[in-house]
Amino acid sequence: MILRDKPGLMQLLFAVRGSVLPRILPRILGLSALSALVLWIDANVMRLPHTNAAPFAVFGIALSLFLGFRNNAAYDRWWEGRRLWGQLVADLRSLSREVDLFVAEPDRRAQILRLALGFLHLHRINLRKEADTSPAIRWAGDDFSESPHAPCAALDALTAAVAIGADDGFARKALAERTASIALAQAGCERIATTPLPYVYSLLVFRTTYLYCLLLPFALIDGAGWLTPIFVGIVAYVFFGLAEVTEELSHPFGETVNSLPLDAICRTVERTLAPKLGQEPPPPLQPVDYYLS
Amino acid sequence: MILRDKPGLMQLLFAVRGSVLPRILPRILGLSALSALVLWIDANVMRLPHTNAAPFAVFGIALSLFLGFRNNAAYDRWWEGRRLWGQLVADLRSLSREVDLFVAEPDRRAQILRLALGFLHLHRINLRKEADTSPAIRWAGDDFSESPHAPCAALDALTAAVAIGADDGFARKALAERTASIALAQAGCERIATTPLPYVYSLLVFRTTYLYCLLLPFALIDGAGWLTPIFVGIVAYVFFGLAEVTEELSHPFGETVNSLPLDAICRTVERTLAPKLGQEPPPPLQPVDYYLS
Amino acid sequence: MILRDKPGLMQLLFAVRGSVLPRILPRILGLSALSALVLWIDANVMRLPHTNAAPFAVFGIALSLFLGFRNNAAYDRWWEGRRLWGQLVADLRSLSREVDLFVAEPDRRAQILRLALGFLHLHRINLRKEADTSPAIRWAGDDFSESPHAPCAALDALTAAVAIGADDGFARKALAERTASIALAQAGCERIATTPLPYVYSLLVFRTTYLYCLLLPFALIDGAGWLTPIFVGIVAYVFFGLAEVTEELSHPFGETVNSLPLDAICRTVERTLAPKLGQEPPPPLQPVDYYLS
Amino acid sequence: MILRDKPGLMQLLFAVRGSVLPRILPRILGLSALSALVLWIDANVMRLPHTNAAPFAVFGIALSLFLGFRNNAAYDRWWEGRRLWGQLVADLRSLSREVDLFVAEPDRRAQILRLALGFLHLHRINLRKEADTSPAIRWAGDDFSESPHAPCAALDALTAAVAIGADDGFARKALAERTASIALAQAGCERIATTPLPYVYSLLVFRTTYLYCLLLPFALIDGAGWLTPIFVGIVAYVFFGLAEVTEELSHPFGETVNSLPLDAICRTVERTLAPKLGQEPPPPLQPVDYYLS
Amino acid sequence: MILRDKPGLMQLLFAVRGSVLPRILPRILGLSALSALVLWIDANVMRLPHTNAAPFAVFGIALSLFLGFRNNAAYDRWWEGRRLWGQLVADLRSLSREVDLFVAEPDRRAQILRLALGFLHLHRINLRKEADTSPAIRWAGDDFSESPHAPCAALDALTAAVAIGADDGFARKALAERTASIALAQAGCERIATTPLPYVYSLLVFRTTYLYCLLLPFALIDGAGWLTPIFVGIVAYVFFGLAEVTEELSHPFGETVNSLPLDAICRTVERTLAPKLGQEPPPPLQPVDYYLS
Repeated sequence: MILRDKPGLMQLLFAVRGSVLPRILPRILGLSALSALVLWIDANVMRLPHTNAAPFAVFGIALSLFLGFRNNAAYDRWWEGRRLWGQLVADLRSLSREVDLFVAEPDRRAQILRLALGFLHLHRINLRKEADTSPAIRWAGDDFSESPHAPCAALDALTAAVAIGADDGFARKALAERTASIALAQAGCERIATTPLPYVYSLLVFRTTYLYCLLLPFALIDGAGWLTPIFVGIVAYVFFGLAEVTEELSHPFGETVNSLPLDAICRTVERTLAPKLGQEPPPPLQPVDYYLS
Repeated sequence: MILRDKPGLMQLLFAVRGSVLPRILPRILGLSALSALVLWIDANVMRLPHTNAAPFAVFGIALSLFLGFRNNAAYDRWWEGRRLWGQLVADLRSLSREVDLFVAEPDRRAQILRLALGFLHLHRINLRKEADTSPAIRWAGDDFSESPHAPCAALDALTAAVAIGADDGFARKALAERTASIALAQAGCERIATTPLPYVYSLLVFRTTYLYCLLLPFALIDGAGWLTPIFVGIVAYVFFGLAEVTEELSHPFGETVNSLPLDAICRTVERTLAPKLGQEPPPPLQPVDYYLS
Repeated sequence: MILRDKPGLMQLLFAVRGSVLPRILPRILGLSALSALVLWIDANVMRLPHTNAAPFAVFGIALSLFLGFRNNAAYDRWWEGRRLWGQLVADLRSLSREVDLFVAEPDRRAQILRLALGFLHLHRINLRKEADTSPAIRWAGDDFSESPHAPCAALDALTAAVAIGADDGFARKALAERTASIALAQAGCERIATTPLPYVYSLLVFRTTYLYCLLLPFALIDGAGWLTPIFVGIVAYVFFGLAEVTEELSHPFGETVNSLPLDAICRTVERTLAPKLGQEPPPPLQPVDYYLS
Repeated sequence: MILRDKPGLMQLLFAVRGSVLPRILPRILGLSALSALVLWIDANVMRLPHTNAAPFAVFGIALSLFLGFRNNAAYDRWWEGRRLWGQLVADLRSLSREVDLFVAEPDRRAQILRLALGFLHLHRINLRKEADTSPAIRWAGDDFSESPHAPCAALDALTAAVAIGADDGFARKALAERTASIALAQAGCERIATTPLPYVYSLLVFRTTYLYCLLLPFALIDGAGWLTPIFVGIVAYVFFGLAEVTEELSHPFGETVNSLPLDAICRTVERTLAPKLGQEPPPPLQPVDYYLS
Repeated sequence: MILRDKPGLMQLLFAVRGSVLPRILPRILGLSALSALVLWIDANVMRLPHTNAAPFAVFGIALSLFLGFRNNAAYDRWWEGRRLWGQLVADLRSLSREVDLFVAEPDRRAQILRLALGFLHLHRINLRKEADTSPAIRWAGDDFSESPHAPCAALDALTAAVAIGADDGFARKALAERTASIALAQAGCERIATTPLPYVYSLLVFRTTYLYCLLLPFALIDGAGWLTPIFVGIVAYVFFGLAEVTEELSHPFGETVNSLPLDAICRTVERTLAPKLGQEPPPPLQPVDYYLS
């Protein structure tokens, strides 16, 4: 995630980090060049058909509709991902309080918290398809890699610790409810990670955007003249820019510059729980070059 | 569900799997041909009335409104269906932990989990109106086909097992809450499956789309000339394409290429629960030709 | 509710059941005739002022905004009504399982379920303002017509049965929670039934739509000529059609062809609970002439 | 709240009750007169600049965006207010059942219900800033006016009654949960009542609407001629009408004709609870001149 | 937060407090001046290319789409922040009732309430990054500044007091649930405070808005003539105005004039809880110059 203030004039002109411009520049230039070619042919080789703005008005509205929908859906996925991780933060903090209330033995309390922190890292690693499980091992003493689903195995181990440490009904009920709440947030994240936006929208959106930009010069020749390539470039920037942003945000657990700062969230939880495990709280994660991982 | 990366240039041009193009191509070509006919008559037989863009601007906005609404509603159904299945995944995992905490006898625990897996398959089979109940029989030993509602009967049997295995109030309360949560997600899926989008919208949308595409040539003759059939074809592609996508997504439990991967979700749950039943976890389901069933 | 497949070409042309066309046809024809009159006066009597498309563009956008908003709000009411009834289905199924777990005496169990089914029918009858309470009497033995609010009285009787049949705290807590969940869904339905969309929107929408269609001919004379009445008719169809659909869907518990199939939902619950009461499950309700009541 | 059927032709022409027209008529006429003045100056004194529709198209879209957003936000507040009161209805009904289950002594039960009804009236009085607390005194015997927050004091008294009447853990837990649910709905209503829509939107919307209507004549002179004042009037009607509706609905607990019928909702609850207090249920509140308070 | 009635004519003309106009005026004037320069060059130096409205229609729709989306997302953040604080208000009130029911010793009750009030102030201070922790010290006797996360430490201390004061399972369960609900609302606020809207949207929106306003003169020269700078100024006002409002509302816990009145909300809670601690309730916070902090 990029953490920066509202962009000033310099950033608006030159900011590249966090921008999608570099990735879509080839397409923008290509389409502008094509439109310049159309102009040149129209002026020097043969007169091409000129259309007026009517068909493009509706076309553009439909395209806006597609992009608007996709953008909303993608942002909702991103924000729901963030909300689920916020739920996990709250759940782990509440778990640490509930073991204080309901589990008598200090060692068992510590074991439960360690397994919870291990789960959190394994969940992050699972979502991001990372390979380094050392943070999980550091807390939980195990990365549960022999299990078919490591985060679930960590929660199973946590439940086993609860079964030993909590011997009355209230304790078991309270901690089972907490674990179920964690499991629900976990399944929500996995749902977002494994179910992309329907592929058919991608096809429809990109095909329509290309068609629009390819046909646009025929409508602009009369109205914009030699400004046509500039307008085509701007329209391509706006539409492809939004399409790219959408693509990124719809995968909130990836490692692009716009994805969620899962490392920092895990660190936040570690800072809250470390004192209860008798450890020095690690420093909060700081953005590097405005980027918080 | 189609699982593919962002479409590249080749896919944009040629991807057919997951695209709605093949299904709507006849309509697109038909409407293009009609508009070509209009042009030919206008040029060679008799001058037809030419309209300007004004009436189409509003018409197009209204049409976008219809399609946008229907698209949002359909996507919400699709995503709610996915969310409900995510809830089921979390509930079954939590159930497996709660039987560990609250049910003393191992055989009874296994019975409850087997019935839960049987329920999950029967629920999937019921939603998709499939006939093969063997996965349910494999886990639960029964397909409850003599009952008026097989998934409910599986949950009833699960409750009966809980009544035997859980003898204190906490255990019964915890497992009754979990079962109620499962039943709520189940009823939510059945709601989506049995209540389609209001039929009146389909009539309104399709009638309006046809009217729009049939009248469009009269507005484009002046502005687009012999490009008219191309524009009519594109507009028809955009509008009918969205209408078709909408139709598919509004039935998320069907077996079209864009419906939800219920088989894969059931497999995910089986993988998590199998070790607790002393079984080798089955391999995760892989997409075949980009399609995950 | 109309249950039909995606409309084919024949249905698009001729479907009347479920369509709003018959009801708005007089208005459409009236407005078309008026616009024809305007044309005739303009051509033969005196030249009327001709306007261009500019004022109508903004007007049309504002109108789309109104209609789009009202349509979303109405559909949300319809879908929330359906969701609440889905909640009731799940609650009654869960209630039937919880009495198995928490109520020892079989007669008391049956009494609770019978009162729950009686409540469901009384709730439906109350929402639809029907007079025939025989289904409620059949299950609950009473229609509670002497009470100021029959469905609430049925739930009160259910609670009284719970007070006798459930003698430990867990049982009372579990069944009180279930009853409260039912009461919440009930109050939600009553909220939708007694609180229509603000009347001021109806005035604003219908007044604006009429103004729009009455002034439209002045903008179309130049652009559409003798096609004007056709365009006015289509625009009237689109706008009044959406306004009518909205009106219907915003009353989801009515008995129009687009309202919710409450009879069928009640039957679904009866089918699930009948075996527990030792009765033959009634057959599921089938649509008659595509209409499910 | 206005309770009327779908407006017929007469109502469309003449309905004033519930309409915002009377309040915005001066502005509409003023702006129309100004535009007539512009026309007169342009024709007789000096030629004013004529603009085409291009700048107004974007301007109008942006204005629609503002108004659409504000309208959605206002309606959401109105509907959330209604939902919270529906929650209170369900909570009070459930409370009346839970005291039957969990509180042994009949006098204590009645006391709790009386305090709950007193709370409901005090909450309504607090939201509407009314002075007459007699309904609260009639039920609860006190209006808690010596307390800094009367509705909270009523709930505190209710809790004190629960502390005496409920002596086992289940009873206290159940009634504490119910009270917390009531308190949450109460705080939700107070949130809506004390936090208006951000003031900056009002400035932006009204300033933009005025600018739009003041500049519109310059764009319409060419296109609409002497119909200009009519169009300006209609556009002003549409935009100011929506702005006024929005203003009203965003204060759902006020006493305008479009605010929520809190008196009627309180009466509904009284009708359900009265029999349990041995009282004749009062008649339901009827609309007076279509208005339900 | 600004608390004012609907703006009257004078306020519309001159209101500055709460308005974003002062902040964006330089940009508006700069862009107007630039467009005047374009006009002057076009008239006196060399004829510049004139474009028609077609490219701007689509451009404007896309821009509206961006701004509309961002505005909705920002308002949702603002309103969710307010909802979470409303939840905190309800939770603290319910906590005060639950300690009455579940904690026997009056000193312990007071300690729990004092820690809760301390938490509330620390949470506010943490969100606003303020330095003055005296209100927290006044209630809780400590500002927990030695802890890595002060609000969490306050809740930990509260849990420790519960562990001493509540000795049966029901009490611990009830108070643990309340604390978890508080922690969830707290984590929700922290989520909003630490996760801004994706930076990439800011770049896209501001870059597109500047491009639009810079190119607009070329489209307006023909249509608006010497009114062009006025139109450019208005369009810049509308678009930059909305962008600024959005920026402010997306940080609901800041100290701008449009951010949430956290001081006043804390005071509301203090007023409700003070009598239970034997203190005189402080007066409600009043807006100063229409501003409620």
